Amino acid sequence: ITKKVLMLPGDGIGPEVMRQVQRVMDWMAKKRDINFDVTEGLIGGASIDAHNNPLTDETLADAMAADAVLLGAVGGPKWDNLPFDIKPERGLLKIRKEMGLFANLRPALVFDALVGASTLKEDVVKGLDIMILRELTGGIYFGQPRGVEERDGVRFGFNTLVYSEPEVERIARVAFDMAMKRNKRLCSVDKANVLESTVLWREVVERVAKEFPEVEVSHMYVDNASMQLVRNPKQFDVMVTTNMFGDILSDCAAMLTGSLGMLPSASLGAADETGARKALYEPVHGSAPDIAGQDLANPLATLLSFAMMLRYSFDMGEDATMIETAVQNVLKGGLRTADIMQPGMAKVSTTVMGEAVINELNKL
Amino acid sequence: ITKKVLMLPGDGIGPEVMRQVQRVMDWMAKKRDINFDVTEGLIGGASIDAHNNPLTDETLADAMAADAVLLGAVGGPKWDNLPFDIKPERGLLKIRKEMGLFANLRPALVFDALVGASTLKEDVVKGLDIMILRELTGGIYFGQPRGVEERDGVRFGFNTLVYSEPEVERIARVAFDMAMKRNKRLCSVDKANVLESTVLWREVVERVAKEFPEVEVSHMYVDNASMQLVRNPKQFDVMVTTNMFGDILSDCAAMLTGSLGMLPSASLGAADETGARKALYEPVHGSAPDIAGQDLANPLATLLSFAMMLRYSFDMGEDATMIETAVQNVLKGGLRTADIMQPGMAKVSTTVMGEAVINELNKL
Ligand SMILES: CC(C)[C@H](C(=O)O)[C@@H](O)C(=O)O
Ligand SMILES: CC(C)[C@H](C(=O)O)[C@@H](O)C(=O)O
Repeated sequence: ITKKVLMLPGDGIGPEVMRQVQRVMDWMAKKRDINFDVTEGLIGGASIDAHNNPLTDETLADAMAADAVLLGAVGGPKWDNLPFDIKPERGLLKIRKEMGLFANLRPALVFDALVGASTLKEDVVKGLDIMILRELTGGIYFGQPRGVEERDGVRFGFNTLVYSEPEVERIARVAFDMAMKRNKRLCSVDKANVLESTVLWREVVERVAKEFPEVEVSHMYVDNASMQLVRNPKQFDVMVTTNMFGDILSDCAAMLTGSLGMLPSASLGAADETGARKALYEPVHGSAPDIAGQDLANPLATLLSFAMMLRYSFDMGEDATMIETAVQNVLKGGLRTADIMQPGMAKVSTTVMGEAVINELNKL
Repeated sequence: ITKKVLMLPGDGIGPEVMRQVQRVMDWMAKKRDINFDVTEGLIGGASIDAHNNPLTDETLADAMAADAVLLGAVGGPKWDNLPFDIKPERGLLKIRKEMGLFANLRPALVFDALVGASTLKEDVVKGLDIMILRELTGGIYFGQPRGVEERDGVRFGFNTLVYSEPEVERIARVAFDMAMKRNKRLCSVDKANVLESTVLWREVVERVAKEFPEVEVSHMYVDNASMQLVRNPKQFDVMVTTNMFGDILSDCAAMLTGSLGMLPSASLGAADETGARKALYEPVHGSAPDIAGQDLANPLATLLSFAMMLRYSFDMGEDATMIETAVQNVLKGGLRTADIMQPGMAKVSTTVMGEAVINELNKL
């Protein structure tokens, strides 16, 4: 059975990094007889330009029908001054919500060859390997009521942070499952000394913990977590947190690695009766409009997002590992795109980097 | 006129670091003829133990009557499992709210002598000097409705993030004033691509900016800000943000310096007709129950908080600078409490550190 993949290149450097994934797919078809049925679609600014809408019903239907979605990047200055309701980001938030992608997996990984790129000292980050689970379809991102209103002549802006017990339960379960596959340590991040919503969060995590007696669970306030990530990030294995805290902490953790251009992510929905989950994969970096279209972007985060797709959506762990190994070998060989360039290394283009990954795949 | 100061030593190491401030006050009385009328009070766990209440009306009345409040630290494992409503933290939140301390000043400063203590590379943090303005009496910390409720058999936890235009305006004004006294650059941090409350925030900051044409103002999303603090913290001069984002980012920025035991803070209210403001000063570090009562704690953050009091509440900038210089000279002399100990330096107790500051003051 062929796997149906929807590709959403999006804006900025999205299309050019996506092309390198297409090459790896072609290689897999030829060399490993694995075929993907690929559809392309528009999202974000590209979709606004074409349809005045950052996510059309048609693209959403394609996403729902696909086995997995691969996204490039969304947004850019061209669309920055659009009203709140039709900004490119709206497309991203809508696709997450409509597909029910409640579990955002954000690995923060330091590649040995790139440890020097971090602003942190080598001993603090060498070997860093954290998995952050961010709740992605709830919390203050989606809570009602929300808006800006005038009351007695004074304007107020308001949002609602809300979590139900089942919402916390399902993300907690994904986090514990993940911890079981890793080093069996889970840190749940909340602000239970101030926010009642996260008092409930902590209570539910505690309850789910009973189902996973092998996992060592801890709780940390979000302000302390942001300090601990800087002080000693290697203390963490898996972290789980709310949508908003996850947005902040996962970006902080990503930057600890010093190579944002290397980091993939996955957003997963609930498993259906057959065990299949809706899923969307995307690099952590943005659309980088300043270098778009110049063959300068780093395609590795998108290739590694594709590897995550193979592992989580298609149970093709072996092929995922092949791609990851190929990427590591390319780095060891000294090739670097501009964003991860280091003295003494060879600076290459997006295309040459993609080519190099294929070459390494051929050697495996 | 003598200055009325309320001292709230609080819990853990609070009392012992506070004693070192008392010594500096005595020195000021003797050598500079500056007298403080000091009252002591209880807050947090200490107040719970005595009165079953983390902040009594009596202490609050003393705080309202004082020209300035100096706080040690609040909380500890002894009170961790108390119900949400009577935890030590409640005392802190209540005193902030009742005194109207809406502007929290959180400097993140790297002392030359301690640059090696940071987990970040020396060139990234040497000379770092950021001032974070955190809104402290609004936002999701205090918004209504809040709580945990059952609806149709499902439990929900919820909080409300709310800002009114005047609330944003007054903190923005403090931030711009601060920027004018510093390097005239202000970065306002929000999540205006997702949260309507911060769309209003951004709009108001933009409007206040017109009153300060000399200040270069920028806006940054909170996830990006958490990355930029790690990537290149020296790009920032003054930052202003909401209560919750400020809680997270100011702790992250504090940890960049590597010496939490050195960082003071100030929380200020609105100026009255005479120009006087309610104010509370406290070190950024916590109550450190593990080392409490052992004469091991670093008193410098509390001494520097007292210096901030002199500067912001009593317009005694010269005396403030004296204390800051004395602290720097002690560090140059090689004395270190355990938390900032480095190879080749002399490890000293809380008391000896306080003594050393007095000695340096005598030399100035
Ligand atoms: C673009 C924005 C809406 C989005 C978010 O806040 O979730 C982004 O920051 C992310 O983390 O994917
Ligand atoms: C103790 C807690 C309520 C408090 C806060 O969140 O404001 C603390 O973290 C701080 O930053 O002063």
